[in-house]
Amino acid sequence: MRKATWGLLLLLLLLLACVATCDPSDQDQNGDEKGPRRRGHVSVVVVGGTGDLANKYLWQGFFHLYATQVGKGHTFAFYGGGLSPADKGTPLLFEILKSQTCPEELSAERCALVRDQFLRLTQYWQLKTEEDYQTLGKHIETQLGQEGMTEAGRFFYLSVPAFAYANIAERVNRSCRPPQNAWLRVVLEKPFGHDLSSAQELATQLASSLKEDEMYRIDHYLGKQVVSQILPFRKQNRKFLKQIWNKHHIDRMEIVLKETLDAKGRISFYDQYGVIRDVIQNHLTEVMTLLTMRVPKNLTDCKEIDQNKLKIFSAFHPLDKGSAVIGQYQSYNSEVQLELNKTKDHLSLTPTFTGIAVHTTMPQYEGIPIFLMSGKLLDERVGYARITFKNNVFCVQDPNSVTCKQKQIVFYIGHGALGYPAILVSKNLFRPALVGSRWKEVSEDKDTLLFGMPLSDYYIQVPTVQREAYTELILQVFRGRMDHFVSADSLLASWRFWTPLLNSLAHTFPRPYPGGAANGNQLNFELHGREVRFCTEALVNVIPQERAGGESFQVMQGKYRSADMVSAWAEELVERLANDLQEAAEEAVQEGAPFHLALSGGSSPVALFRRLTQHHYAFPWWNTHVWLADERCVPPSEAESNFRTVHDHLLQHARVPYFHVHPMPVQLNQRLCVEEDGGALAYERDITRLVNASSFSYVLLGVGYDGHTASLFPGTALDAHGERLVALTESPVKPHQRMSLTFAAINRARRVSVLIMGKGKHELVTQLSRIKDTPDRWPITKIQPVSGRLVWYIDYDALLGQ
Amino acid sequence: MRKATWGLLLLLLLLLACVATCDPSDQDQNGDEKGPRRRGHVSVVVVGGTGDLANKYLWQGFFHLYATQVGKGHTFAFYGGGLSPADKGTPLLFEILKSQTCPEELSAERCALVRDQFLRLTQYWQLKTEEDYQTLGKHIETQLGQEGMTEAGRFFYLSVPAFAYANIAERVNRSCRPPQNAWLRVVLEKPFGHDLSSAQELATQLASSLKEDEMYRIDHYLGKQVVSQILPFRKQNRKFLKQIWNKHHIDRMEIVLKETLDAKGRISFYDQYGVIRDVIQNHLTEVMTLLTMRVPKNLTDCKEIDQNKLKIFSAFHPLDKGSAVIGQYQSYNSEVQLELNKTKDHLSLTPTFTGIAVHTTMPQYEGIPIFLMSGKLLDERVGYARITFKNNVFCVQDPNSVTCKQKQIVFYIGHGALGYPAILVSKNLFRPALVGSRWKEVSEDKDTLLFGMPLSDYYIQVPTVQREAYTELILQVFRGRMDHFVSADSLLASWRFWTPLLNSLAHTFPRPYPGGAANGNQLNFELHGREVRFCTEALVNVIPQERAGGESFQVMQGKYRSADMVSAWAEELVERLANDLQEAAEEAVQEGAPFHLALSGGSSPVALFRRLTQHHYAFPWWNTHVWLADERCVPPSEAESNFRTVHDHLLQHARVPYFHVHPMPVQLNQRLCVEEDGGALAYERDITRLVNASSFSYVLLGVGYDGHTASLFPGTALDAHGERLVALTESPVKPHQRMSLTFAAINRARRVSVLIMGKGKHELVTQLSRIKDTPDRWPITKIQPVSGRLVWYIDYDALLGQ
Repeated sequence: MRKATWGLLLLLLLLLACVATCDPSDQDQNGDEKGPRRRGHVSVVVVGGTGDLANKYLWQGFFHLYATQVGKGHTFAFYGGGLSPADKGTPLLFEILKSQTCPEELSAERCALVRDQFLRLTQYWQLKTEEDYQTLGKHIETQLGQEGMTEAGRFFYLSVPAFAYANIAERVNRSCRPPQNAWLRVVLEKPFGHDLSSAQELATQLASSLKEDEMYRIDHYLGKQVVSQILPFRKQNRKFLKQIWNKHHIDRMEIVLKETLDAKGRISFYDQYGVIRDVIQNHLTEVMTLLTMRVPKNLTDCKEIDQNKLKIFSAFHPLDKGSAVIGQYQSYNSEVQLELNKTKDHLSLTPTFTGIAVHTTMPQYEGIPIFLMSGKLLDERVGYARITFKNNVFCVQDPNSVTCKQKQIVFYIGHGALGYPAILVSKNLFRPALVGSRWKEVSEDKDTLLFGMPLSDYYIQVPTVQREAYTELILQVFRGRMDHFVSADSLLASWRFWTPLLNSLAHTFPRPYPGGAANGNQLNFELHGREVRFCTEALVNVIPQERAGGESFQVMQGKYRSADMVSAWAEELVERLANDLQEAAEEAVQEGAPFHLALSGGSSPVALFRRLTQHHYAFPWWNTHVWLADERCVPPSEAESNFRTVHDHLLQHARVPYFHVHPMPVQLNQRLCVEEDGGALAYERDITRLVNASSFSYVLLGVGYDGHTASLFPGTALDAHGERLVALTESPVKPHQRMSLTFAAINRARRVSVLIMGKGKHELVTQLSRIKDTPDRWPITKIQPVSGRLVWYIDYDALLGQ
Repeated sequence: MRKATWGLLLLLLLLLACVATCDPSDQDQNGDEKGPRRRGHVSVVVVGGTGDLANKYLWQGFFHLYATQVGKGHTFAFYGGGLSPADKGTPLLFEILKSQTCPEELSAERCALVRDQFLRLTQYWQLKTEEDYQTLGKHIETQLGQEGMTEAGRFFYLSVPAFAYANIAERVNRSCRPPQNAWLRVVLEKPFGHDLSSAQELATQLASSLKEDEMYRIDHYLGKQVVSQILPFRKQNRKFLKQIWNKHHIDRMEIVLKETLDAKGRISFYDQYGVIRDVIQNHLTEVMTLLTMRVPKNLTDCKEIDQNKLKIFSAFHPLDKGSAVIGQYQSYNSEVQLELNKTKDHLSLTPTFTGIAVHTTMPQYEGIPIFLMSGKLLDERVGYARITFKNNVFCVQDPNSVTCKQKQIVFYIGHGALGYPAILVSKNLFRPALVGSRWKEVSEDKDTLLFGMPLSDYYIQVPTVQREAYTELILQVFRGRMDHFVSADSLLASWRFWTPLLNSLAHTFPRPYPGGAANGNQLNFELHGREVRFCTEALVNVIPQERAGGESFQVMQGKYRSADMVSAWAEELVERLANDLQEAAEEAVQEGAPFHLALSGGSSPVALFRRLTQHHYAFPWWNTHVWLADERCVPPSEAESNFRTVHDHLLQHARVPYFHVHPMPVQLNQRLCVEEDGGALAYERDITRLVNASSFSYVLLGVGYDGHTASLFPGTALDAHGERLVALTESPVKPHQRMSLTFAAINRARRVSVLIMGKGKHELVTQLSRIKDTPDRWPITKIQPVSGRLVWYIDYDALLGQ
């Protein structure tokens, strides 16, 4: 009994330890400073401590950390690690350290004192071999022992190329891991892989040395003061935002990072990555999730944040080639040839500019385009996220009054016309609450225009003190605030989202652009449905398009098996079929009759359904009854069910009245397709009752490799159906049991279309064109409407086998 | 046999005669001039021939008609009719006639000649008594006989107050009707009634004297050159428009008629009508239908036009008080006192300004606001219909390029900054085809701005010759082109649409406005959902609001029958219930469980459904299962069915997956609620299978006057249900057979809400508050969730009986 109680206590303690890093009770919602729970000695190791990043940002951050935390119960030691021996590394490191500036809140006197201490506590350490790490580990332990200090934890910042991560992590784990009751935090920065599989590989490698809560993956955008306040802003202004933060009010979101610089000097890195991997997959994606995810109840609960992020990732519409436009500045290719030592023939397809439209399936945001845009050699350096709202005001007389202007919220990350980070809310929306005690409201004069409006038309909030992202994030690592970092799950979710687009663009030629002001309107792009295209024709056509003629609407009409045939490339074919279908539906409306449409399952109809729901806004769904031509004997909500396909791709997007939807009753009395349950008969009765003369307005069929259509398979005594309209049938492939319209039912229809697409069907199409009517062997040949019209829709791939 | 053939022929002829006025074969699609089929003598009678309208517009129109038609096979005689005797009327008429100007295409010489002829053919005729009309009729016949002319027809223009229409029509019918083979056309002009019932009355009166195809109801807006080209424009630019003329591209439509004048001198008329009856119900409504109706296949087929108009009328969302804002210029009331001889206490509520938002249920236009706006004493005189498109362009650098500007199409009816009628299409849309041979494209210089853009950014089409609307319409009456006039059906449809709004505004105080430039932004209004409100608080509050406190969100919480109770005014109560419901649904999402919601029928839930679908965009419908608490044994698609109510008001607007919708199976084997069909058992099985522990997340109930809830009625042996979840029950009122959740099922729910609204329920609420649990007599008292929570939602009317 006593043992059990202790075991329980231990379990509880373990649980507490596990969630410690996320436990909000330990943290301060306003972001005010507060030390981590366990006080004691902290060893900071910057691997790559004399590199570029360390020089520019990291030591500044650590100095700031020291200056603000010293005297609050912690002691520190800093190690700058590098590959060079100490005699070379030490002077280099001290050159860097001396130039660090003090936090504003410190007096000059105090600063000088603190800087002295900081320099004394910092040493260079060669970190090249396994032994170097062992010596470091021992040194830390010895020091702790000598001075009788409690250890708080060890803080490794890996400022090295990503390929070295796994190796260093292994060494840290083996030789520098602190004892159980002190923490280990290892900071890593992008690139975390190149696509989903490489990211997964890296994650697996690192996981063998480090636990997930020991890894702090930095996206320095999350340390930008404005970005870190997006969620607090959304939470604190919930009262106003809950009315307008939805598809009925938001017009669009723009997430933008424009650069004026080129990639010169960084080509060996950049050319492998390109703009999407460099800044979209990480920085702008983080901003996008912060804008669209559900605001967590607890802003510091990294578990909840992560869950909500994963949910919004799964709600984004998948991207494909049409989701992005890409460009490349004109001198890029010669820079590649030079820096990578390539010949004049070498052609890099790496994009340096992109414009992307993302959409979500979340009902709240449905239809709102989220534009992500970034590029090098553009006209200005600026980063922002801008939410514009629909114009719901009618200005009767005074178009200059503030109510008539664009309603917008701008998270201005920095640079650009404004020159500093700020959160701006147009005055015709609401006056926002201050996002935190370290922010203030400012007013600006009338003359500067930002997004078409004078600054005086905005409420503007700025941080009281501007702080570098790295400085901010180093402090958050020290505090154990994982909510400011990228979790493995959300990293992989992001790669899962972006990889299909990256793959689909791999062989696409980016549009060349001259750079700077000369770009003019060449890079403007526009939305078509959910796709984007450049607004203007390309000025320079480097490479002729593969199938230049294919762009136009080319449709061939002819005869096939003595019926009419329409043929075209797949996309145009589906377009044509959708038009014909709508025309037939409209005719029914004009005759004052319902449109009875019987649909098949399979993948070809899915393309048709998508076309119908995305382009045929005027389709008279209210007047349409949807029937099934055949069904597999599986529960209708399962993925294999034909009805499920029709439901997910058509019914969920078209407003067909519930009473007009007729799934086949394959499941009755909790069992599937049992003759005695009379499902086929019930469906037949429904048809007889609702469909005039049991003559469907339109039946859409496909045909299988074996010549089956609907679920009428060769060699299965189809004659036995006689004049029955619906029958249980058998398929040679699983699931064997089926329910199907019979020949009698299909041939009574006013219009029957057979859709055949894909190269794989070429042989079948050729064969079918030659044979006579042999329904036993080729059931499709028995499709001959008695008084209706049969039309074959066959794409060029299937027809020509090209 | 021979007789039958003749009969058939006669029938055919009759049919031909009936459709003659609409028969497009007789007409010219381009609107080019062409005489009516039957040539001969035409008698034109202008009743009110010396009145204001006749003076300003009508005689000019008839002179134009004569000048362009003389010598094309017709002869004419014109009669100016009036109440005065001939010696007074004749000189008045000739004063008017002399001042008419010639059509541009006539030379001065020819004009002088034609004018001379016209004066000779015109005479004044006193038309006061029955005898006057008889004499006129005889005169026409005598003249025809004397000169041996064939009669083509008689053309009466009633330019008199509407109250005189019926009487004059009767006299025309009795005394001036031409023989069978000549036509009679009587032109009438608004007001055609004051609301639906008066319009119907007038229509009935007129129909007793005139056939529908003898009445030409003028809306002079239909004669405006730009308005008459809306349908041709839509047809000829179909190639471009079919892509963008829908909710995915159109941002909004604005139909505007602004006046600078006041109503002075016309108060006796105006004060009875107001702005909505004066120009919205007719002129702007005509424009609205032309913009939104289906383009007829044949533009001159008045039957098809009429059908399509009626269809679009039936697709408009009904209007209510929230659909409009109204204003009244400040000096209006004193003008009323003066002109109508009223005391200083007299307060007119007649609006002189209105802003209205109309929406349609057509899937094509769903969600597009159509703003109608008109007013007197505004800052400018202008009329236009403007369609703005959504901004689908992302401007990377060059915001001044034409692609970045507002996409719009403007039907500029006249006056305003432009000063002439024109059709404008912004150049970033498409270059429109010319709407007719009498139109030309012009280009304008950069400096004039129209709707925020220089004129050089538009393609502009203008008529080659500007023509007055009346001149145009008089010509169309002569041609028998009924498609340019208002049919009785569409007139009544329009009144049917506007009357509820007019009634609901009858006691509303219009916002006062100073007039002219001083109005500033006081009249700007904005859209909230489908409603409109003024953007700013009223500056002057003439009259305190009736229930001033009622505006705020006032909700009372208390106890009722020892459970929680929420009470508020109906609107707030429903708002609160909707919020609570969403909260519960969101909790389910967070627990990772489906939200099982059981709903009742009746009218109170409809208000809730409306609130949910219009305001709760983020409701997790995708995670919600919809069940019924009870059902009437009627086919589920019938109006009486509870499921039908849920379907029409909730499911059609919320995206609940098909598999999550669970109507009660009251109809099985083609019969209703037969015990052996096992419907109740099947529903119970579905509940057991899908709902965890058969415990619904939320059950929404009402309560009847007799104390029943769901379909559990007093005195019906409810105990017998035992632990069954679903049962067939009996109601004392029709339809007697019901299916219902049992107490056992309801009391297992996690949350049960009982919604009671309306004064009629006050006695019941009082009674229920006093009695003990007596389920046999008051079934509602047995609702006691075992471990769930019961909340009563009772509105103030029901609670307080006020």
